[in-house]
Amino acid sequence: MDDISFAVLGTGGIGRRTLDVAQYKDGVTAVAACDRNGVAIDHDGLDVEELLDATEGNIASGPHSGPDESSGGEPRDSGPGGESDDDVATDGGAKTAGGASSDGVKQAGEEAGIVASAQGEPTETPIDDVIAESEAIDAVLVALPNLEHDFIPRVAERFAEADYEGVLIDVLKRSRVIGMLDDREEMLEDSGITFVCGAGATPGFLTGAAALAAQSFVEIEEVEIWWGVGLKSGYEDNRGTVREDIAHLDGYDIETARDMSEEEIEALIDEHDGVLEFTDMEHADDVLLERAGICDAEDVNVGGILDVRSDEKPTTTTVRVTGTTFDGETGTNTFQLDDATSMEANVNGPALGYLKAGVMRNRVGDYGVYGPAELMPGF
Amino acid sequence: MDDISFAVLGTGGIGRRTLDVAQYKDGVTAVAACDRNGVAIDHDGLDVEELLDATEGNIASGPHSGPDESSGGEPRDSGPGGESDDDVATDGGAKTAGGASSDGVKQAGEEAGIVASAQGEPTETPIDDVIAESEAIDAVLVALPNLEHDFIPRVAERFAEADYEGVLIDVLKRSRVIGMLDDREEMLEDSGITFVCGAGATPGFLTGAAALAAQSFVEIEEVEIWWGVGLKSGYEDNRGTVREDIAHLDGYDIETARDMSEEEIEALIDEHDGVLEFTDMEHADDVLLERAGICDAEDVNVGGILDVRSDEKPTTTTVRVTGTTFDGETGTNTFQLDDATSMEANVNGPALGYLKAGVMRNRVGDYGVYGPAELMPGF
Repeated sequence: MDDISFAVLGTGGIGRRTLDVAQYKDGVTAVAACDRNGVAIDHDGLDVEELLDATEGNIASGPHSGPDESSGGEPRDSGPGGESDDDVATDGGAKTAGGASSDGVKQAGEEAGIVASAQGEPTETPIDDVIAESEAIDAVLVALPNLEHDFIPRVAERFAEADYEGVLIDVLKRSRVIGMLDDREEMLEDSGITFVCGAGATPGFLTGAAALAAQSFVEIEEVEIWWGVGLKSGYEDNRGTVREDIAHLDGYDIETARDMSEEEIEALIDEHDGVLEFTDMEHADDVLLERAGICDAEDVNVGGILDVRSDEKPTTTTVRVTGTTFDGETGTNTFQLDDATSMEANVNGPALGYLKAGVMRNRVGDYGVYGPAELMPGF
Repeated sequence: MDDISFAVLGTGGIGRRTLDVAQYKDGVTAVAACDRNGVAIDHDGLDVEELLDATEGNIASGPHSGPDESSGGEPRDSGPGGESDDDVATDGGAKTAGGASSDGVKQAGEEAGIVASAQGEPTETPIDDVIAESEAIDAVLVALPNLEHDFIPRVAERFAEADYEGVLIDVLKRSRVIGMLDDREEMLEDSGITFVCGAGATPGFLTGAAALAAQSFVEIEEVEIWWGVGLKSGYEDNRGTVREDIAHLDGYDIETARDMSEEEIEALIDEHDGVLEFTDMEHADDVLLERAGICDAEDVNVGGILDVRSDEKPTTTTVRVTGTTFDGETGTNTFQLDDATSMEANVNGPALGYLKAGVMRNRVGDYGVYGPAELMPGF
């Protein structure tokens, strides 16, 4: 396959790290990046080093502004089980999209963000500028803060309206967003878009591991995804994520968690000595594994432990797949991430891998919405 | 992607199990199968159940006739670290290919093998018969006994000579065969063949796991592949494999191992109380991981423990990938197969997955020789 050209919408933590990590990967070339103030496009390949150096520090993390994908703060863990898909101060077109807020975002003067790079051009319409060049772009990583549930689906709509043929990919974890993309599947298909959703650490990496681990078996009994996150230094920047996670505790739901005051949350955390354990979380993993034909969604269990008072992971992130072999034996295959690998470290490798797999699917005419596990080798 | 049609050359253990396991998989349809006496072709899909029932028992395992891929005996483990890629009594065209021996193969009368099925037709030229129909076949799993090193490469040549456009896939483990396929790469490319080699348990499954586990890291320090095989009931049928493995012991090589008498081998095994431990094996895993861009071949270590006096695995098959993250942390991610999963159980799921991924590569025009890890999602 030819070299793949890709763009990054949003040059906050995830966008920056994707540009960075892509330099270690064969076969992918960053040709465009944008933030809320500017856009850098070079179809021969961006000078990534210059771009990252010039913009470093200009892009500061703002406080979280959304309850789930929100996290802020890098390079710390972005929250329980989660990639930080909006630890971006830039919003890459919030004005034009109209959905994202930039409240509290620090910018380092007029040269804020990508325009601080020699390759950056100021623009009022960063996403539209990328769309205008998208005929020569194989894939677009949407690393924008999904401040409203439908923000990224609406970005996808804009690419579809421009008849973009290629891959859009996000690293979100919310099942709701997948449903919203599904609602737009016909539009995506008509345009020729392959949308890969949730391609970061989780559900991306871990459901991919589950799909692989399932290969010993002809019937899957259970997939258990269990994560550990130590969030001491990241706690201040991840209050929104912690609040969202509280919704998964017994006796709480999204509404009650949202209505809690900061003091109530602190009291709850004190009560648990800083360590919150979650079971039966509603994560996209179940939906995505069912889509990939690995197992029924109801056989997927997601949980984990969050320690807001330590940076050590309180438990090891582990994927366990239990099934029955063709010869009738039952067993459990296991995949474990070293505690030393931060969530950030586990986002970008998989995201770029799935991006490449998405381009392949796109080239054979597979349009619509895909989960990461569906992009594993036909398992 | 449309449904994938595939053929199986050879209906011994691996061929049969592939047909069997494919029934549990979405998107793949078996349309052809052959053995040395016959061929069954139905482009609407074979009646796999009838074929397997009718031929069961007709296909008996013969004694091993080759030193490595040879193993015979199912459903036992096929030997250290290895899929049994020739536990087939049938050789699916040995006569026409001229390389395979059928000495010692038990056949149940005139209706031996595939012709015992209502779908089977007797033929003198089974492989040619499949080639004649190959325009409508997306992929061909070569599950023939590779009794001579170049037997499968020569089968590939025959498909190339017939201008086959599609996927050929084997589950061999020998690095040498990969080299021989590489020698034929231009021929394969000219024809439009994507040859996926080593797509079974090892190197297929385990290098795929290594490619996945590597995704936390930007630099890989070491990949350790460690297998356990318990071979008590399979020992008689796997003497050839054991002999080949002895070549990996300190102080032995392929030549000295081949020259040993049965008594000398027994004495050696006695000396080790039936448990042989192997380190630094020359396995295809290293070459294939380097091809996939995961790490240098020299950073891959393959070893394991073979117990010929127990059916319990003496150690757990484990893949460990050690590397450095983008943020400078060093860690080791781990993938483990449950001891209850036999090598056979670990061959066919991955093989069919890689077959599907191979078809995708073929459709985007990626021809030549591919290892399984290269078919993971662009990692």
